[in-house]
Amino acid sequence: MVDSAPHPSKGGVCVNLTKMDQISELNPEDFTVAVEAGVTRKALNKYLRGNGLWFPVDPGADASLCGMVATAASGTNAVRYGTMRQNVLNLQVVLPDGRILHTAGQSRRPRKSAAGYHLTGLFVGSEGTLGFITQATLRLHGIPEATVAAICAFPNIRAAVDSTVQVLQAGLPIARIEFLDEVMMGACNRYSGLSYAELPTLFLEFHGSQQSVEEQVGATEAILQSNGGSDFAWAREPEARGQLWAARHNAWYAALALRPGKKGYSTDVCVPLSRLPEVLLETKKDLLDSNLTGPLVGHVGDGNFHCLLVLDPEDVEEKERAAEFAKRLGRRALAVGGTCTGEHGIGLGKRQLLREEVGEVALSTMRQIKMALDPKNLMNPGKVL
Amino acid sequence: MVDSAPHPSKGGVCVNLTKMDQISELNPEDFTVAVEAGVTRKALNKYLRGNGLWFPVDPGADASLCGMVATAASGTNAVRYGTMRQNVLNLQVVLPDGRILHTAGQSRRPRKSAAGYHLTGLFVGSEGTLGFITQATLRLHGIPEATVAAICAFPNIRAAVDSTVQVLQAGLPIARIEFLDEVMMGACNRYSGLSYAELPTLFLEFHGSQQSVEEQVGATEAILQSNGGSDFAWAREPEARGQLWAARHNAWYAALALRPGKKGYSTDVCVPLSRLPEVLLETKKDLLDSNLTGPLVGHVGDGNFHCLLVLDPEDVEEKERAAEFAKRLGRRALAVGGTCTGEHGIGLGKRQLLREEVGEVALSTMRQIKMALDPKNLMNPGKVL
Repeated sequence: MVDSAPHPSKGGVCVNLTKMDQISELNPEDFTVAVEAGVTRKALNKYLRGNGLWFPVDPGADASLCGMVATAASGTNAVRYGTMRQNVLNLQVVLPDGRILHTAGQSRRPRKSAAGYHLTGLFVGSEGTLGFITQATLRLHGIPEATVAAICAFPNIRAAVDSTVQVLQAGLPIARIEFLDEVMMGACNRYSGLSYAELPTLFLEFHGSQQSVEEQVGATEAILQSNGGSDFAWAREPEARGQLWAARHNAWYAALALRPGKKGYSTDVCVPLSRLPEVLLETKKDLLDSNLTGPLVGHVGDGNFHCLLVLDPEDVEEKERAAEFAKRLGRRALAVGGTCTGEHGIGLGKRQLLREEVGEVALSTMRQIKMALDPKNLMNPGKVL
Repeated sequence: MVDSAPHPSKGGVCVNLTKMDQISELNPEDFTVAVEAGVTRKALNKYLRGNGLWFPVDPGADASLCGMVATAASGTNAVRYGTMRQNVLNLQVVLPDGRILHTAGQSRRPRKSAAGYHLTGLFVGSEGTLGFITQATLRLHGIPEATVAAICAFPNIRAAVDSTVQVLQAGLPIARIEFLDEVMMGACNRYSGLSYAELPTLFLEFHGSQQSVEEQVGATEAILQSNGGSDFAWAREPEARGQLWAARHNAWYAALALRPGKKGYSTDVCVPLSRLPEVLLETKKDLLDSNLTGPLVGHVGDGNFHCLLVLDPEDVEEKERAAEFAKRLGRRALAVGGTCTGEHGIGLGKRQLLREEVGEVALSTMRQIKMALDPKNLMNPGKVL
């Protein structure tokens, strides 16, 4: 379980950058833009309206883009458009000694570069431990001519995951492919007054030209049906798409509504796709055995899923049970070649799992880098390493 | 100009890893494979035959994949499939002190991760200065159902580049879009006995389903023609595609044949697409003014182009003129927000340009990392920094 709230763990200073909210250097022909630390994902996409461009990385919440840089965020569109790692071209960083670093050099924005160490890549996912990220130059994408949303239920988890693998193997450029387990679907039905089948379900989205999207939908539907998919439905118009996807978009709140007044905590493992069915099944069994409420929702195209645990924060014993469950889940992912965190980061709570995941040599290499760039340990001390 | 040959600049030891040629851990469902240091691109793609998978990063030469990791290589397919940066999941590295590092942890291969510093990204493009890369876990892609190659000539450079921008803005998932200037086309005609129009020319390739590829070809042809494109030709069958692309594939040798017995040196700038026409035109004028032979060939979808200088290695004055030209070209790219190296790396020859490109703060940050990981400066000393 991640405790990713940006509060200092041992006292210290919290710096609020939300008022650094300028968007600049929009170059539509080059698909690039620069955003300051306080600019959120939705604010950027609103700004881009009329240019035919958008920034697709979507972690759900309307997070600040530089915060998304700091945690290497991703979300529902990553299967097609990549995570933050693939969509950041340059960063402005205030280093611990006060100097201003431009990770790719000031004002640089080529689509690719082989000039020296990849500092941009190092700062993406550094969780505030190497400096303040004050501006990010981002890579934009063209808004697709057509978008179609779809939904399909499956008799079991394996059928849903097998369908995903086959869609990817067929080279279908799917934009979103999200998994909700039957518990999550039940929660969504109750929360949003819907009547979906309470079965393992895939939510999908297709981007492209009208013709290409129709072809993708047809080819995908054939794959889903060959795996026993049922209740296949799709929608083209924005409003209808919104309705279809409402269940997925409200999943977090639907989970919370399972136990009104309680608190949510999300796990975040990511595993190779071929190992996903067994990890999902073992996790569901563990949830039952642990007597925990935790519907599952996954960015299944990336092998990444979240268990939305709903807990009583006053119940120390339950919190302890959940922490043990989350640790077992992390180790289950590690045992099959996966990671304890696909997109949320290490923070405080996953430091032990990070050690198990990368090993002593990698951990000491990370510490050498931290020591070299922040010798006084001023930046978010105690986090990650 | 890059001198990227792996020879020690001040004496020292050269380690030959070509016999480490094992391919392992192929997981077709997960689109991953591991290759040792000596495995080349073609050897891997031969190994993958029959699995419906391929590794698309193609720098032209049959380079070793771990060498491609070290230089952050890319090439003709990068506009669709990304560079090495987007296609490496994990690295095994022998560190300067002899310890073995797994940048993402041993045997880990999730499609994405937010676990600690992105060491994998740091070692991609490190040019041998941080350790020996002995194994790489790579991301594979499905072989497209259909491939179509095409070629189109333009009245001028701007028309060719404008076409490229419009193809990308239309969201067409083009796999390759390569530019050859009229000098290069003339050289190719002579070298390969062809009769293409000696005009600025785009070579294109489309990947996808039969239907999607046909749609892409149609939409692209319309864009090219609206920009004055002529002599549009396309080919579907492997042999015909090979013939169509022969000019592009033999460009290096065709350039060398312009001055038999002389040596080739390639420049490698990469600039934002919108600035590419002016940089190409100024570079062509500079070539003329400098009395140098240097046909142009570019990965135009990425804004990256090479000037294939053909020089007399015995002519000290000409070499000096070429070095000055290359430096001006690097600075021309820097002046418009680009990089002095899109895919070849810094090596020895571009260290001054790197300093100008990234600035003192970034350079000192890179040096701090180098000092932290290789305090005795054992690894490829004198290169990059």
